[in-house]
Amino acid sequence: MFAVTILGNNSAVPAFNRHPTSQVVTMDGTNFLVDCGEGTQIQLINYKIRRNKISHIFISHLHGDHYFGLVGLLNSFSLLSHQQELHLYGPAPLEKIIQLQLEAAATELCYPFHFHPITKAATLVETEKIRIQCFPTNHRIECYGFSFEEKKEPRKLIIEKAKALGIPANYYSRLTNGEDYTNKEGHLIKNEEVTIATMPGKKYAFCADTKYDENLIPYILNADMIYHETTYLDNFLEKAESRFHSTTKQAAKLAKKANVKKLLIGHFSSRYDKLDEFEKEARSIFPNTSLALEGVCFEV
Amino acid sequence: MFAVTILGNNSAVPAFNRHPTSQVVTMDGTNFLVDCGEGTQIQLINYKIRRNKISHIFISHLHGDHYFGLVGLLNSFSLLSHQQELHLYGPAPLEKIIQLQLEAAATELCYPFHFHPITKAATLVETEKIRIQCFPTNHRIECYGFSFEEKKEPRKLIIEKAKALGIPANYYSRLTNGEDYTNKEGHLIKNEEVTIATMPGKKYAFCADTKYDENLIPYILNADMIYHETTYLDNFLEKAESRFHSTTKQAAKLAKKANVKKLLIGHFSSRYDKLDEFEKEARSIFPNTSLALEGVCFEV
Repeated sequence: MFAVTILGNNSAVPAFNRHPTSQVVTMDGTNFLVDCGEGTQIQLINYKIRRNKISHIFISHLHGDHYFGLVGLLNSFSLLSHQQELHLYGPAPLEKIIQLQLEAAATELCYPFHFHPITKAATLVETEKIRIQCFPTNHRIECYGFSFEEKKEPRKLIIEKAKALGIPANYYSRLTNGEDYTNKEGHLIKNEEVTIATMPGKKYAFCADTKYDENLIPYILNADMIYHETTYLDNFLEKAESRFHSTTKQAAKLAKKANVKKLLIGHFSSRYDKLDEFEKEARSIFPNTSLALEGVCFEV
Repeated sequence: MFAVTILGNNSAVPAFNRHPTSQVVTMDGTNFLVDCGEGTQIQLINYKIRRNKISHIFISHLHGDHYFGLVGLLNSFSLLSHQQELHLYGPAPLEKIIQLQLEAAATELCYPFHFHPITKAATLVETEKIRIQCFPTNHRIECYGFSFEEKKEPRKLIIEKAKALGIPANYYSRLTNGEDYTNKEGHLIKNEEVTIATMPGKKYAFCADTKYDENLIPYILNADMIYHETTYLDNFLEKAESRFHSTTKQAAKLAKKANVKKLLIGHFSSRYDKLDEFEKEARSIFPNTSLALEGVCFEV
């Protein structure tokens, strides 16, 4: 399963039972935590997310509503005797902030902990199956979005057919990578005759906090799903600009220009109790929009 | 009203819907916040505590379950345009921890903020009506308890009687402070004849995290109410000792020795789902014990 579970969708301060930003991206059997606002560890319990499956945490930027729950979570992992390695990615000053708090408590984490500062667009995690990258967004302070991609799986070989057509076994990996085969008699065997297409790798992008910025498009182009903040409704366009945030219609416009398939919106300002207008305004431009409601799991 | 509202009563990690330590002491029209575990700002909303009445915050020690909600609260105060001065008292390293996080967010608090490091038993706040002191407890790291006292009110003058007895007006304040009066004729007028006793000042003490330690007694002697941690039931005595925590029976024994009137117990370990045994064990030694349940307001 490749899915995103929302743990917090409010901006700045907790309000109306909405929590500050946090999401869990589940892919390839792992839970990747994206941002960690205050109370995230409680939300993880509330929504029964397996904390011991979290091996990587990504922090977009150092506004408190995106990371004030982090040190509590790291600390709890230690108290709960978390065993596996934990990799943390975020802006460089985060390391000192954590260190200082662990030192003040005379705490040493009981698990291997690795901090990876992020400073520019980069590939953060790459395995045979997945790729996680970060990209800069346009916010008041240094801020990064994150993209999560499944790599395209190799095509599936129809082995009986390949054998019957006399294709040598040492050529099979070239077939699964999409190549055709020409046999000794000069006869071309098209790839499609001996392999089956698999699913193309899917992609999700979390665009963090940002003002409307088309420079983000290359990083999210053709994604199956993106999350884009909508701190304000459209009539607060000026406020959004001045605070380096976005409105509903700006997020929808960017989703459309980037040709994504689905848009999640969140990071709602505490001035709004009800959220239905957010959905309505965004859908007027990009119909396949959903509110990033807490506890909801969206399949990519 | 002089009362204590419990916001969090669990130790170490959040569990069973119990939150890490935080309490609000309300006296003389002010809310004094004692400890500020993760999620305290949400608990303040849940229990409708007026955040703009919080002018002083006291942090007992720098284990995360006692202060990881602090920087979020300070930040939210700023976002919510808190106006009044805020005084923070806690172990010295707390200042740098907060500073670093404000700097990382390029945030300047919008209200006057004063940090007061605590390093030993001392009077922290003193007005005509109240006195707040801190005292060291016996924990794994530097840790302080806090006592909150109403000062005894001056006795109330029966002015008609004082006039009738010919006591000069410039002597009245000495009367309300308890002195007798001897008139020109050498006749003694006893204080009780011309004044009425008022309530003696009440006292509450929060004993923070601590192992059993009779050195605390002088600071809590005869208090109307104390909070003492009971991380464990009595059969975990050894574990309590080794972790610098206390059991139910130890807390009850100390309350008895210190001749206090009422005991609140909390800081329950996450190993316990149900809490009734805590109450039972403590009451077997000190009958006037209550569980410090979240949301409950205890009048001192």
